[in-house]
Amino acid sequence: MGDAHAEQMYREVMLKDPPEAATPFEVATLDFVFGQVWPRDGLSRRDRRLVTLTCVASADSPQPIEDHVYAALKSGDLPLEDMLEFILQLAVYSGWPKAAHCEGAIYRQWARIHEEQGEEPPPWPMLTNDVLGISDFEKRIFRGAQEFADVNLMPAPRPMSPYRHAGILNFVFGHVWQRGGLNRRERRIMTVASCAVDDSPTPLKTHVAASIHSGDLTKEEMDEIVLQFSAYYGFAKGEAFQVAADDAWAKMPLGNLDDWRRAAEATPWDVEPVVPFEMPA
Amino acid sequence: MGDAHAEQMYREVMLKDPPEAATPFEVATLDFVFGQVWPRDGLSRRDRRLVTLTCVASADSPQPIEDHVYAALKSGDLPLEDMLEFILQLAVYSGWPKAAHCEGAIYRQWARIHEEQGEEPPPWPMLTNDVLGISDFEKRIFRGAQEFADVNLMPAPRPMSPYRHAGILNFVFGHVWQRGGLNRRERRIMTVASCAVDDSPTPLKTHVAASIHSGDLTKEEMDEIVLQFSAYYGFAKGEAFQVAADDAWAKMPLGNLDDWRRAAEATPWDVEPVVPFEMPA
Amino acid sequence: MGDAHAEQMYREVMLKDPPEAATPFEVATLDFVFGQVWPRDGLSRRDRRLVTLTCVASADSPQPIEDHVYAALKSGDLPLEDMLEFILQLAVYSGWPKAAHCEGAIYRQWARIHEEQGEEPPPWPMLTNDVLGISDFEKRIFRGAQEFADVNLMPAPRPMSPYRHAGILNFVFGHVWQRGGLNRRERRIMTVASCAVDDSPTPLKTHVAASIHSGDLTKEEMDEIVLQFSAYYGFAKGEAFQVAADDAWAKMPLGNLDDWRRAAEATPWDVEPVVPFEMPA
Repeated sequence: MGDAHAEQMYREVMLKDPPEAATPFEVATLDFVFGQVWPRDGLSRRDRRLVTLTCVASADSPQPIEDHVYAALKSGDLPLEDMLEFILQLAVYSGWPKAAHCEGAIYRQWARIHEEQGEEPPPWPMLTNDVLGISDFEKRIFRGAQEFADVNLMPAPRPMSPYRHAGILNFVFGHVWQRGGLNRRERRIMTVASCAVDDSPTPLKTHVAASIHSGDLTKEEMDEIVLQFSAYYGFAKGEAFQVAADDAWAKMPLGNLDDWRRAAEATPWDVEPVVPFEMPA
Repeated sequence: MGDAHAEQMYREVMLKDPPEAATPFEVATLDFVFGQVWPRDGLSRRDRRLVTLTCVASADSPQPIEDHVYAALKSGDLPLEDMLEFILQLAVYSGWPKAAHCEGAIYRQWARIHEEQGEEPPPWPMLTNDVLGISDFEKRIFRGAQEFADVNLMPAPRPMSPYRHAGILNFVFGHVWQRGGLNRRERRIMTVASCAVDDSPTPLKTHVAASIHSGDLTKEEMDEIVLQFSAYYGFAKGEAFQVAADDAWAKMPLGNLDDWRRAAEATPWDVEPVVPFEMPA
Repeated sequence: MGDAHAEQMYREVMLKDPPEAATPFEVATLDFVFGQVWPRDGLSRRDRRLVTLTCVASADSPQPIEDHVYAALKSGDLPLEDMLEFILQLAVYSGWPKAAHCEGAIYRQWARIHEEQGEEPPPWPMLTNDVLGISDFEKRIFRGAQEFADVNLMPAPRPMSPYRHAGILNFVFGHVWQRGGLNRRERRIMTVASCAVDDSPTPLKTHVAASIHSGDLTKEEMDEIVLQFSAYYGFAKGEAFQVAADDAWAKMPLGNLDDWRRAAEATPWDVEPVVPFEMPA
């Protein structure tokens, strides 16, 4: 059976009793998702929550968003500050509207958690501009090019379009990836899940490969991410994700990665850009 | 275990041998998707293919699209003409670009099937304009309003916007839903799956409710569709789908549906439109 | 018939001959999409291209992306600089991965257009950091709060999360919406289409309402956008979009919009934030 086991896992993850399983969907939710996926080794609970939150937020599923945000906050697996960092990374990779909706859920569930404890929510953390990073644009973009090389293991693109200039170099790698709250490995976990939802072919391939080639995620961890993802976002998209993981692994090692970092550090856009985002052979 | 059983089901559905299951994803694909979902009673193989094809096409997953199109054609579960009707219905509910891509897969796989048999593909079926339905726009829109009422179990909207006039009344219900190849029940199966991918709340709720209230799909069949869908498009979106099915069932019976048909038949837009498409209480 | 008319429209929009219409999908593409949707009045060709490009890019459909990017560039409706601005706005509202993929299509099609003319592509426009806007963070965020109020017709949020601080105030409204190349009305057209794909409920409602209430788009124009969108992204999401447009129109006028601008100008985050993005009553 495994029911008691699955029900206990449901309680640990969702912080409530499982519903009566009346339909095939509900039975499979308990039996497969909570009985067979969540209990697996290989990823921490916090890691599995990052994958799951990315999936439910990307899926716009109203009730699952509320439930998983509540459970992530209440369990302490993702404290409020980390949840809010999650939202910014989500905005970049899944788009602003989904992030706006999910951040609303954080407000609601944060209030609910404190109400359940019969207490006022503590004052909301306000941010000051000194956390916004380097304000000199020359330095910021140079630093963005370095961060791009470190994250993507390829030279940064030249500032040849608003997307690459104001977007990628200035904001995404010039700022977001350098923030605290979530470390680089955790941002990678979210990003590969978001790219797998999205399934634009090259970003998925690139981010999965860089996550493995950098050593931030092992092949075994990536495989666990694919399964957790498939449970929440389906085996159709899961398959392309798995293929990307297998391909990246088959192509290890990549050569001298330090060369790319050095190339990027030296003269970020005097090296020929690699367009569109192809991994070096 | 159930492995031999799952492998046999994989062969029947995909018309090839299952891959070596090396990753958690591949093990779960075999064990859960083919071992536990596809073998279930309650839907025909053709019905499950319609759900699955809608999911993989909506997910833009390149290889699964090719594989499932091949298997659907090759098995005879969906002959070429029916596959092509599937594409038009998909275009309407999941959008033109996804349909264009999936139709490309049909050309490729149709050629491949005939190549495998060492034969030339037969001449492609050409269509003539007499299959386009009524060309008199007054009659076409009147007939579209009737079809709308029959499919949605509510009065047709007035032609109060291009979306409703040129789109809904003229094209979607004035033509597409009246075509052959797929019957209304099958178009409903595809449409609820497409709306569940989409997860705009009202179309999902409306089409699920009308499918059940019309008697075209039983609650048990809808529950099976939700599980098949969840395997391919994930439990995050699956949950909203299941809630829509449960809600529609809880609100049965709906009352005298003939009244809505008669109202629509008489003077389609002299009755007050029901906006935004709420089911009548 | 209307076939010759539809074929001519196809040539004007896609800059190539229509394919032989052999399948129900292809017949409907010609008859409905090019015969009935593209020829309509009420939006310019450039506007319809912005809606269509947002749809095909969001749908990740490889061939339609290439085809529509080619036609938009080649026709001159969207010169290269404007296409590249489109990508940055797309990145924000549909997520970075889709933008990365679509920008790759611009490189490919730009090269192809020049190859077809037997010429070298002209040097790619490189960007300098002086287009990145205000570098002083205090001023940038203050200006971002103003822009937020102007675009959204509601007070800016406080910097109460990384998403709102580094994201919304600093980057999205502190920079992107203020850029040239596309004007505010055109950014609205793309944004409502992107939110309609996304269908997180509040951003769709908010951006549709602000587009109409600001006077940047008339109700008739919004209705045309909904139909163009439905042709390319499907009638399932089209329905929620139409409802948002109808609701926004029903709630006109909104009252004294200048008050919100003044409130935001005075002390952007000393006014109570409107969370999560509710329109003022």
